[in-house]
This record gives sequence, C-alpha cells and structure tokens, in this order.
Amino acid sequence: MELLKKRIAEEAIVINNDVLRVDMFINHQIDVELINAVGKEFHRIFKDCGITRILTIEASGIGIACAAAQHFSVPVVFARKGRHKNVGDDVYSSKVYSFTKDESTDIRVSKKYMLQSDNVLILDDFLANGSAAMGLVDIVRQAGARVAGAGIVIEKGFQPGGRLLRSEGIRLESLAVIKSMENGFIEFE
Amino acid sequence: MELLKKRIAEEAIVINNDVLRVDMFINHQIDVELINAVGKEFHRIFKDCGITRILTIEASGIGIACAAAQHFSVPVVFARKGRHKNVGDDVYSSKVYSFTKDESTDIRVSKKYMLQSDNVLILDDFLANGSAAMGLVDIVRQAGARVAGAGIVIEKGFQPGGRLLRSEGIRLESLAVIKSMENGFIEFE
Repeated sequence: MELLKKRIAEEAIVINNDVLRVDMFINHQIDVELINAVGKEFHRIFKDCGITRILTIEASGIGIACAAAQHFSVPVVFARKGRHKNVGDDVYSSKVYSFTKDESTDIRVSKKYMLQSDNVLILDDFLANGSAAMGLVDIVRQAGARVAGAGIVIEKGFQPGGRLLRSEGIRLESLAVIKSMENGFIEFE
Repeated sequence: MELLKKRIAEEAIVINNDVLRVDMFINHQIDVELINAVGKEFHRIFKDCGITRILTIEASGIGIACAAAQHFSVPVVFARKGRHKNVGDDVYSSKVYSFTKDESTDIRVSKKYMLQSDNVLILDDFLANGSAAMGLVDIVRQAGARVAGAGIVIEKGFQPGGRLLRSEGIRLESLAVIKSMENGFIEFE
C-alpha cells in the first residue's frame, strides 16, 4: 500500500535493527484518515471471503479493526491481555510471548464472541515474531471457527512471524513489508 | 442518545448495583455501527468547539475516539497504562485509581502529542468515579492545553465522576446517564 509505505518512509523512526516506532500515526497517536484507508484496503483484499467477525488484540489493533469493520459490517472482538472483568471466566485463552518485554501474557476472548460458525479475519498493526498473531489463530481454532486470513499493517519481513503464519496455512496479507532496517534505513520488500 | 439507551436497556447485564456489562457491543466485542453513531453524536455536540485533538485511554476508548475523530478530522491520542516502548520517557503522566481493581496505574502521553496550543476533547466509554477522566484532564493541563469538553458514552450518574468533572469546570456530555441499577433494573436519568 503506497500511501502507508510513504508515511513509514517519511515519518517512522528506526530505533535499532529490530524496533521501528510508528507512534506518530498508528500506536499512540492515531491518524484516523490513514487507518481508514488501511481499513478500506483490508476490505478490498478480503471482501469476497465471507468474513463474519474481525478479531484483534488490545490496544493498537482496535482502531484498525474498527476502521476495517465499517466496510465489512461485522463485529470486532478484541482479545484482552490478562484477566479482565469485561471478559469473564468462560473464555478461550492462549499464551503470547513478547520478545520486547521478555514475558508471557495470557490473552482471552469470551466464548460468547467466537462461534464455531465464524469465519474470522485477524487484524493487527505489527507482525514480527508472530506470537500475538498465532495466539489469535489458536483462539479461533479452539472455538472450532475458521481463520479466513490475517491482515497486518506492518510486517517485519526479516523476522519469522510471516513464515510461521504461512506454515500454518494462514492467508497473510501485509500492507507494508519491511525487508531491512539496518543502519537506520528502511527498505521495503 | 435514544439508540444507545435502547441497546443498553435490551442487552446490557447488571452484575450488581455498581457493575454494568456492555461487553457485547462496547468493551470486548464492538458493534462498529453503534460506535460510529456514537462518534457522530459527539461530533454533533462538540463540532463548533474548535477541537484539535481527541484524547482517550486504552483500550475501550480507542474505537469510540476513532469513530468520532473521522468527523472532526483531528488525530486521536490514547494514553497508555504503565510504561510502554511506543510512548518513550518524555511524557506527561498521571496516577489513575481503579476502584474495581483496587490499584493505581500511571497513565502516560508522549509530550510530542499534546501541545500547549491544543483544544482537547476527552472521550471514554464509562464515567463512574472519574479517576480515569480526571487523569486525562490532568495530562491536558500539564501540557498547558485546554480541555474543550469530555464526552462519555455511559455515565453512572449515581457515582461521583460527573460531579467531580463539573466541579473542575469541565463541560461534560454523557450520551446515556444511568440513575440507578438497583435490583438489576436499569433506570436512566
């Protein structure tokens, strides 16, 4: 997606070979016009897949999922990290490991909002090691539902998440794939 | 807002005199059509206030803030709970006490995304004791910016948050104000 790559090239900050900051338009401040364009693009890609529900994870995925869901006219569900009173105890849960924080978190989705009949589009802002995305896939599969695909805003193509999802038979569509960030220079695939 | 009150009356679950669950359409599963209507209503109310930025708090506020921001054409900033690599260390922070969890959390906003010149609309899903909303007000004021108003989806009118915000001179607009939830029955103001 050219508009997105342009914004990343112009504004994103490479902290080191692994960490890219896009807090100016995606995951702290949100440029709603940009994420609406992102949502529209996900709809263009997945519109014929019979999506019944969009699944994401708090917090950065929520705006993106809502932007896309307007076009699909389906509900969004966001997985909660850790226990939460709004999710209750009758849940599907999966363990997600964060490499940046070096810790594991349980993510949870209420069984009420993931049905066996669902055909689920998983959306998130980043794909790096794939732990969060695989946790969401795990939750969909626990419900006996189908993963129609995964839509990612920014994939770090030099990390194993993309390979991992594809090896699980997931259709992965990333709007910007970064090949390398070496020496502070962002190279797209 | 009649549409919202109707949904609350028909679907929300009263857990006890204090806790109302709206996880079926606002804070775990999100009905995007409903929150878009909510966003449009906040725009109708605050459209002539010269809003330059919308401030909310992760996670449930994000979808609502994005839905509103489409109409204002301004960026959304969501305060992070606890330390977060996307926020960095150059932040405005405030302490927020959660009555349901009986614990305090620091909320943080990067100084880059709250300017002295800003005229800020604070949006959130719930107002109960007002601790989160007052934390957001505190952050805006630390930046020397102006709070144009606070828009709340569901205010528990029998808890002190509304009074607290008004006593601080904040214009508060709640789309549904619950007067009482005694004996499992939801009564609106």
